Amino acid sequence: MEGLVSLPAQRTVFFVSDRTGITAEMLGNSLLSQFEGLNFQRRTIPFVDTPDKIDDVLRRIDETAAAEGRRPLVFSSIVDEVMSAQLGHANAMVLDLFQVFIAPLEAELAAKSSHAAGRSHGIANSHEYFARMEAINFTQTHDDGATTRDLVKAQIILIGVSRCGKTPTALYLALQFGILAANFPLTPDDFVDRQLPRSIVPFRDKLFGLTIDPERLQQLREARRPASKYASLANCEFEVREAASLMQRERVPTVNTTSRSIEEIATTILHRAGLQRHIY
Amino acid sequence: MEGLVSLPAQRTVFFVSDRTGITAEMLGNSLLSQFEGLNFQRRTIPFVDTPDKIDDVLRRIDETAAAEGRRPLVFSSIVDEVMSAQLGHANAMVLDLFQVFIAPLEAELAAKSSHAAGRSHGIANSHEYFARMEAINFTQTHDDGATTRDLVKAQIILIGVSRCGKTPTALYLALQFGILAANFPLTPDDFVDRQLPRSIVPFRDKLFGLTIDPERLQQLREARRPASKYASLANCEFEVREAASLMQRERVPTVNTTSRSIEEIATTILHRAGLQRHIY
Repeated sequence: MEGLVSLPAQRTVFFVSDRTGITAEMLGNSLLSQFEGLNFQRRTIPFVDTPDKIDDVLRRIDETAAAEGRRPLVFSSIVDEVMSAQLGHANAMVLDLFQVFIAPLEAELAAKSSHAAGRSHGIANSHEYFARMEAINFTQTHDDGATTRDLVKAQIILIGVSRCGKTPTALYLALQFGILAANFPLTPDDFVDRQLPRSIVPFRDKLFGLTIDPERLQQLREARRPASKYASLANCEFEVREAASLMQRERVPTVNTTSRSIEEIATTILHRAGLQRHIY
Repeated sequence: MEGLVSLPAQRTVFFVSDRTGITAEMLGNSLLSQFEGLNFQRRTIPFVDTPDKIDDVLRRIDETAAAEGRRPLVFSSIVDEVMSAQLGHANAMVLDLFQVFIAPLEAELAAKSSHAAGRSHGIANSHEYFARMEAINFTQTHDDGATTRDLVKAQIILIGVSRCGKTPTALYLALQFGILAANFPLTPDDFVDRQLPRSIVPFRDKLFGLTIDPERLQQLREARRPASKYASLANCEFEVREAASLMQRERVPTVNTTSRSIEEIATTILHRAGLQRHIY
C-alpha cells in the first residue's frame, strides 16, 4: 500500500541572479519556509549577466516545466531591465525581487537608479574590503583566548564555557558584519577563583556572555569527546551553573544560544550592544 | 565658499524585521546601492514581533520624519499580516518585502502560508544545525594546512600563496553554505619541488586554486609584515607566477580573488564545482 501514498507535489525553484544570487536565495527560502509540507527542489544559477546566459537559463527553465508538467518558481535578481524582461518570458512564475522595488524607489527618491549590476556583494570600495579582512583576521587570531594582544581593539569579547558557540558567533560577526570579535573561554580554573580571567577584566564593557542549556552542551561535547568527564551531564551542569553565576556577579549581559541560530545570536548581541552593523 | 556647497540630501533608512532583519537589510542595501550620490543613514531594528514593539518603531520613524522634514524609507520583513499593516501607518515609504510576494505565491502554490515568524535564520532542524557546526569546526581545524587528518571528508580544498584569501573564503563557505572547506598554503618549498604538497595529491579533484594580482598581494602582505622580503613586490611576483604555473600544470581550476568579494569567490567556486549550496 505504501507505494500508493501520494507524495507531496514537487516544485522546482530557480534562483537566478546577475551576481551571487545570495539575496535572492535568502529571500526565496524565507518565503518558501512559509509553505510547510510542500517539496521544493532548488537550483541556483549565479552570474547570469548577458542575454545569451539568460537564453540558456530560459531553456533550462522551460525544459524543467515540460519534464515536470508544472511550471517552476523563479526568484530572480536581475538589475538590467531588458534582461529581466527577457527572463520573464520563461514558462514559470517569475518573481524579480529587484525590479518590484526599484521603480517605487526611483519615484520616492526622485532619482534614476544606475541600473548597474554588481554593486552589492562586490568590492564596493577598498576601505570596506580591508576593514572586513582586518575583522576576520583579528577574530581568527583572537579565537578561544589565543592571544590577549590588541584586545583593546576588540568591539565585542565573547565569553562562555567550551562548546557554547563562541567561535561560530565570533566568526559570523566578523565575516558578515565586519565586527572585531574576540572570544575567551571560561574554564574550571575561573570557577575556582570565582573571578573573570584577569586579562579581560580591563575590557568588561565589551564582554558578552554566551549561555547554553546543559543538555545541549552535553550533546555537543559528546560529539567531540565521547564518554569523557568533560562531556558528562554532571560536569556540563556544573560548568553552566558556575559560568552563569560568574556572569551575573560581574554584570555581563548574556544570551542563551540553545535554540538560537548563529544569525539570531549575532543580531541579539549587536542590538543589545547598540552597535549598528554593516552587512557585507 | 566650501560651506555653501549643498550637501546631498540625507534620508534615514530603517530595516525592520520580526527576526534578524538580515534578508531585509541585504535586499535594501542592494537596492540603495543603485542610487549613488545619495546619502543614507541606516538603522536596523530586529526582533519586532509584538504590536507593542511595532508601536515603538512607529514612534521612532515618525519622530525621524518630523525631525528631518522628510519621510524615511522602511524596508521591512514582517510575516504577520496585521502587524505589517500596522507598520504601514508610519509616516514613511514602507516596502514590506515579505508581504509583496506571499500572496502571489499562495495563489501559485494553491496553499496557505503558515504566517509564522522565525522560520528563516532560526534553528529549523537540529540535523542542519549540527551539519553547519561540523562544517565550521572542520574548516577551522583545517585552516592553512594545520592538519591533513580527515581531508577525505573535505568537499573543497583551497590552495594558494599566503594572503591570497584562502581563510576568509573557506570560513565563508562553511558559515554561510555549510561546506566542509579545507585550505592549504603553497609555499616556496612547493615551487622548488614544482609539485603539489604531497598530502593533498590524493584529493586533487577537490582542489580549487586562488590566484591574486602581485600588486594587491604586496599591499596585503605589507599590512602584515611591513618592509619584509615576504611582502616585497619582487617576491610576490615570483610566488604568484610559480603558483599559477603549478596550478596550470596540475590542471587545478582557479579563480582570481583580486577584484572579487568573498561572496563572489565562494559562489564562483561552488558553481564551477557543481555543488548546490544550502544557504543558512
